Amino acid sequence: MATAGSGRATTAGRMLDLLRTQGTLSRVELAERTGLTPATITNTVRRLIDAGLVHEIGRGHQRGRGQPRRLLELDPRAWHAVGIQVDRTTTTIVVLDFAGTRIADASLRGSGGSGPEATVAALVENVTALLQRNGIAHDRVLGTGLVTHGPQDRERGVLLTAQPDPAWLEFPLTRTLADRLGIPVLLENDATAAAFGEQWAGSVPTDTFGLVYMASGIGGGVVVDGESYRGRASNAVEIGHIALGGGLAPCLCGNRGCAQAEAGPRAVIEGALADPALAVRLGIRGDPDDTLADFERLARAWRTGDRDATQLLERSAQWIGRAAVTLVNLFDLDTVVLAGPAFATAGPLYRRHVAAELEQRALSRALSRPGVHLATNVETAAAIGGALHVLRTMPVDVRRPPRAAEIGSG
Amino acid sequence: MATAGSGRATTAGRMLDLLRTQGTLSRVELAERTGLTPATITNTVRRLIDAGLVHEIGRGHQRGRGQPRRLLELDPRAWHAVGIQVDRTTTTIVVLDFAGTRIADASLRGSGGSGPEATVAALVENVTALLQRNGIAHDRVLGTGLVTHGPQDRERGVLLTAQPDPAWLEFPLTRTLADRLGIPVLLENDATAAAFGEQWAGSVPTDTFGLVYMASGIGGGVVVDGESYRGRASNAVEIGHIALGGGLAPCLCGNRGCAQAEAGPRAVIEGALADPALAVRLGIRGDPDDTLADFERLARAWRTGDRDATQLLERSAQWIGRAAVTLVNLFDLDTVVLAGPAFATAGPLYRRHVAAELEQRALSRALSRPGVHLATNVETAAAIGGALHVLRTMPVDVRRPPRAAEIGSG
Repeated sequence: MATAGSGRATTAGRMLDLLRTQGTLSRVELAERTGLTPATITNTVRRLIDAGLVHEIGRGHQRGRGQPRRLLELDPRAWHAVGIQVDRTTTTIVVLDFAGTRIADASLRGSGGSGPEATVAALVENVTALLQRNGIAHDRVLGTGLVTHGPQDRERGVLLTAQPDPAWLEFPLTRTLADRLGIPVLLENDATAAAFGEQWAGSVPTDTFGLVYMASGIGGGVVVDGESYRGRASNAVEIGHIALGGGLAPCLCGNRGCAQAEAGPRAVIEGALADPALAVRLGIRGDPDDTLADFERLARAWRTGDRDATQLLERSAQWIGRAAVTLVNLFDLDTVVLAGPAFATAGPLYRRHVAAELEQRALSRALSRPGVHLATNVETAAAIGGALHVLRTMPVDVRRPPRAAEIGSG
Repeated sequence: MATAGSGRATTAGRMLDLLRTQGTLSRVELAERTGLTPATITNTVRRLIDAGLVHEIGRGHQRGRGQPRRLLELDPRAWHAVGIQVDRTTTTIVVLDFAGTRIADASLRGSGGSGPEATVAALVENVTALLQRNGIAHDRVLGTGLVTHGPQDRERGVLLTAQPDPAWLEFPLTRTLADRLGIPVLLENDATAAAFGEQWAGSVPTDTFGLVYMASGIGGGVVVDGESYRGRASNAVEIGHIALGGGLAPCLCGNRGCAQAEAGPRAVIEGALADPALAVRLGIRGDPDDTLADFERLARAWRTGDRDATQLLERSAQWIGRAAVTLVNLFDLDTVVLAGPAFATAGPLYRRHVAAELEQRALSRALSRPGVHLATNVETAAAIGGALHVLRTMPVDVRRPPRAAEIGSG
């Protein structure tokens, strides 16, 4: 079967990737950037045009004395991809078109204390409604990228964690969701997906960087020369479980002093709850399924100048900064991106403190000034990355004209 | 110029690498393992034989009904490589033949408080003497791999550290050594080289693992799918500067609670010196240029059952175990190798405690039992890795018969 987009292996896949990143390119530019022969480019472009995946959009600027170049562009409506980020306290759904542009999104409550069956049912209902509202037929959706915190078995599509509920451990997650949704599902780590999403957004000035992802918990991602660091089985960069100097708080993982136990949103909220008058004043409720909502209340209080809220967040931000120092020292980085719903309001405070910690303590500080960036899509980066992962890695049949299929089934 | 061995890029280099790892292979096996056509294999093998790098050694077992296979092997005497590991308290020199076998070694005092000029002079003297004693002409030495602790600028061949003496920072190290020695010099990180050396030794049962390197300081290396993790500029995996939970000791790097400051050989010796009677009893002298000799005294006392020495080493080993937990959690590993002169005697004690910490605290412990191995060449792994790095990456001119040159110059 002639397929495109399966990793970077196929010629067609590489060309689609380049067009998705660059917007428009001529055949000559495609040849230059892929190192492929003009004949291969011509043949592959013809197949992609016949399949309705790519179209020509007139002529670009003439360079030198050659022929005017016809520019190529992805047909954004050829296919779509869904990205879903699920966490205990938050769920985000995005729909991207074939060119990678976000055309719809929705956010809902997280999985909370619910088991996987109830969560899958809610996801199916919401994804279906979102596609319907936007007039997208299910069979024009290439796939769904489901992103969760680790550890995962990506190949089998199951979670290797009993958090927050034992029913999640080894539940056939991607298979069940794919069956009920009628769309193939790929599993991906939330922080890795967020790194991928931010790289795509073009906001990170380098293709080698680390990412701190903070939702209910804390995760990490590393991109080196444009490629995600995967380790043995894609369960890498668990920076929430760096045991920090001076830290002694017990962590779920069995360790003490972990970044997540010392400084994660739940730890911040526990800090607020320790002072009942403060909790009442800030409207902190303490429901573990609503940690991020409480965290938002605290972050808004910081924005209005509340000193107690500021103190709690600053302590957390300093710890996260120290975890970032270890991330940077171990992976040899000079750029860190902050992403995830916990940074929605408190992002600038965290950015400042993480930058200060790196400037004081990163081993590389003498070589280059560490850069800390707040993600462009701070809340949705992971869901966007999940959908992009689908666009980049799921095979597209380049023989079948998608428009015809759309008419047939829509 | 026809060259071989420059990374994995060239056909000849890949074939030399395979022969170095496998010992002997037939042309058919080379074709199978490289995916190259029989014609390419035949042509390249002919060039390698003509250049005196490879020879045939009779016939292997017959498979099926085909022709009996002639086996190929590297000519071990075609070239040599030198590996030098320099640390504040220890220097190790090894000479490998072209097949990667160690044919000579020497160990001497480290750089101590000396500046780079004096250290380079000592290295030149010792390498020259070692080559002479073993009848190896300088122009049959492909290169020297110089391994030191980070940070380094490998491309420029300079150290980016003022430790232990400011004169080392930005000193033109590889250029000066190469000029005085008359042999090209490559710079490499000690822990990365040690990981490479152990992988080559075949003692690690997987090609994805982490390595803890302990000489005067503590470094780390990570190999994923057989390739070293390099990061932005090859200054990665600085596990000596993981700030550990509960740790508060000030570190040279400006941080507190770093693994090196809490648990490195110097910290262990400071612990012994804090009890003057103990220091006298164990023969601990406290000279910072002799930390590893003091550490050896302590390790030997442990071996004879001394309880105070055991307590000091066990505290260090537990901290190293916690640093290994972070290494494993961030890089997604299940195998850790311990290498470096500090493990020469105390290795088994460290192995046991690092294994215990990983079994209790590594996130992946539920997925697979973490494995901790003591390096085969615990003291010399880094120097061996430096020499192997030369053999694998420095180009060999495959046109010039080395034997003829050897006769001409030897």
